[in-house]
Amino acid sequence: MADTNLYHVAVVGATGAVGQKIIETLEDRDFPIEKLTLLSSSRSAGAKVSYKGEELTVEEATPDSFEGIDLALFSAGGSVSKQLAPEAVKRGAVVVDNTSAYRMDEEVPLVVPEVNESDIRSHKGIIANPNCSTIQMVAALQPLREAYGLSRVLVSTYQAVSGAGNEAVDELREQSKQMLEGNNEVEASVLPVKGDEKHFPIAFNALPQIDKFEDNGYTFEEMKMINETKKIMHMAELPVSATCVRLPFFTSHAESVYIEVEQDGLTVEDLHGQLNDAPGITLMDDPASQTYPTPLDAEGKRDVFVGRVRKDPDHDRGFHLWVVSDNLLKGAAWNTVQIAESLVQHQWLQIEQ
Amino acid sequence: MADTNLYHVAVVGATGAVGQKIIETLEDRDFPIEKLTLLSSSRSAGAKVSYKGEELTVEEATPDSFEGIDLALFSAGGSVSKQLAPEAVKRGAVVVDNTSAYRMDEEVPLVVPEVNESDIRSHKGIIANPNCSTIQMVAALQPLREAYGLSRVLVSTYQAVSGAGNEAVDELREQSKQMLEGNNEVEASVLPVKGDEKHFPIAFNALPQIDKFEDNGYTFEEMKMINETKKIMHMAELPVSATCVRLPFFTSHAESVYIEVEQDGLTVEDLHGQLNDAPGITLMDDPASQTYPTPLDAEGKRDVFVGRVRKDPDHDRGFHLWVVSDNLLKGAAWNTVQIAESLVQHQWLQIEQ
Repeated sequence: MADTNLYHVAVVGATGAVGQKIIETLEDRDFPIEKLTLLSSSRSAGAKVSYKGEELTVEEATPDSFEGIDLALFSAGGSVSKQLAPEAVKRGAVVVDNTSAYRMDEEVPLVVPEVNESDIRSHKGIIANPNCSTIQMVAALQPLREAYGLSRVLVSTYQAVSGAGNEAVDELREQSKQMLEGNNEVEASVLPVKGDEKHFPIAFNALPQIDKFEDNGYTFEEMKMINETKKIMHMAELPVSATCVRLPFFTSHAESVYIEVEQDGLTVEDLHGQLNDAPGITLMDDPASQTYPTPLDAEGKRDVFVGRVRKDPDHDRGFHLWVVSDNLLKGAAWNTVQIAESLVQHQWLQIEQ
Repeated sequence: MADTNLYHVAVVGATGAVGQKIIETLEDRDFPIEKLTLLSSSRSAGAKVSYKGEELTVEEATPDSFEGIDLALFSAGGSVSKQLAPEAVKRGAVVVDNTSAYRMDEEVPLVVPEVNESDIRSHKGIIANPNCSTIQMVAALQPLREAYGLSRVLVSTYQAVSGAGNEAVDELREQSKQMLEGNNEVEASVLPVKGDEKHFPIAFNALPQIDKFEDNGYTFEEMKMINETKKIMHMAELPVSATCVRLPFFTSHAESVYIEVEQDGLTVEDLHGQLNDAPGITLMDDPASQTYPTPLDAEGKRDVFVGRVRKDPDHDRGFHLWVVSDNLLKGAAWNTVQIAESLVQHQWLQIEQ
């Protein structure tokens, strides 16, 4: 790294599924940390979390917690970010926010480093981390868009329960056990959406609802994929549509993505070439040897895995991709830490507002 | 029924997952049976199966088993159908075949009664039952096509393990138990495809391979959806493409279907109206009350369930549908018995070849 300074870093939501992965990733990447402050709601304050062999105590997050913090990584829900991110910025911290609170704010860059890293430099104190299902898709689309142009995206997702937090993970585990013991009348209280009115079993099932419904019949998750893709790729006019489905596996989202490119006459081999050379992408695509990525393959890995690249039989510019990535890493913690690394590396932490 | 005759019916593959459902459905529908003969491979011969309170003994299927049979319902794998269906026809039986053996044979009608019932009358002794994932999709598309025309279909499937037979069901159950006990190195020997070289865990995973790969990078399952849809709908030029994925649930396939219709300016309410009136379709679509079908909802039911009807935000003639049905009933046994009922009702059993 160009910058050899050490930083005072805060993780907000340190006891959550993503917060834990952020702390692990900071350690793993040997991020230049002088001091690590772990913050949470009052409910989780007092918990112990280990970082580089040291036991750190999680403290309750308050506005004053951000005094002296250089970089604050937020992953404690939208309402916490709305309340505390401006307080952190006021006290001189740069915030990377992993909630939906600021993603569509025109003043806030929404960043997947493989796609639009340079947007970070225009930050006014807050940089937003996109939704998990959006991140892996745009990472896979970017090399194809750069080489061939992109004129349409239709996606159907296959999303893991960990995207809905630790309670959803527990619910899948508990329901699965009960159903395997022959009890089909399992209780559901978390999925599809914790705060929504009805709950349905996820074990041995598929729920075509992620997040609440908007008035247009799409879910917020689907609209996130639509709107965030256009913002990240700077393609306000790109036609994008999405169907998002929660499925009974723990980790990694998979996506069946249909794209139309602008260039005619391309082959699967052409697309393979671009994906092979792209940063953050691992191509796993050889039908003859049954090589393709699955959610279990991607678990614990930082890359976005792409397979099943096929040309549409009826559309010369149409291609199908199967895109898989660990929703807690590239979909959340790793993308957050990548943005943090970029801030440090380019000395964009020190931007005067 | 117009015809009050009783028939000598044979079920070939009587001990398999679909064969069992065919026998249950015949009983449930009070099909006009004079005598029911249950046939299987020599391996399963001798097994007892109950029908209307009687214990019937399964016999080994041989060419001579079909002497005196009026109607033979085959569901014992493609090679059995290839060998024995012509023998049955030679002996005067009409065959409804639930395998892929004859589906694309130009002489053989491929039928979903809600779509192309009248094709049955042109049979030359064999009528083919389409692939499970195709049946439910075309049943949902037909009322929309009749009302508005249809110019494009793109589908991503979410398919249950029972489509791969009882061994796959056992594999999902066994792997799930082991993984819940903390063993992540589970053995896989059935899925994705019994006869293929590699096997991967299905429990808490998603496998983007159903059936073997063709040289074009699509799986046979995907090509079945593409080719059978065109044949059943008599739309050889309809652009259809598919991505087929096996998922960790036991029963019912779900499908994220994108269509383009020919008529401009339609609303979701227009499509609801057509689907509400369509035979064999249950519309379950009210986002405000979180109403949409899931695989568990459809299990044990004969209808095709449709929900999540949405207009594409960027395409006036583009719509999304979420289509769910019990893959062993409408996807197999029920569609087979529907064809049998149609043969009887229209006296198409007696067609002279």
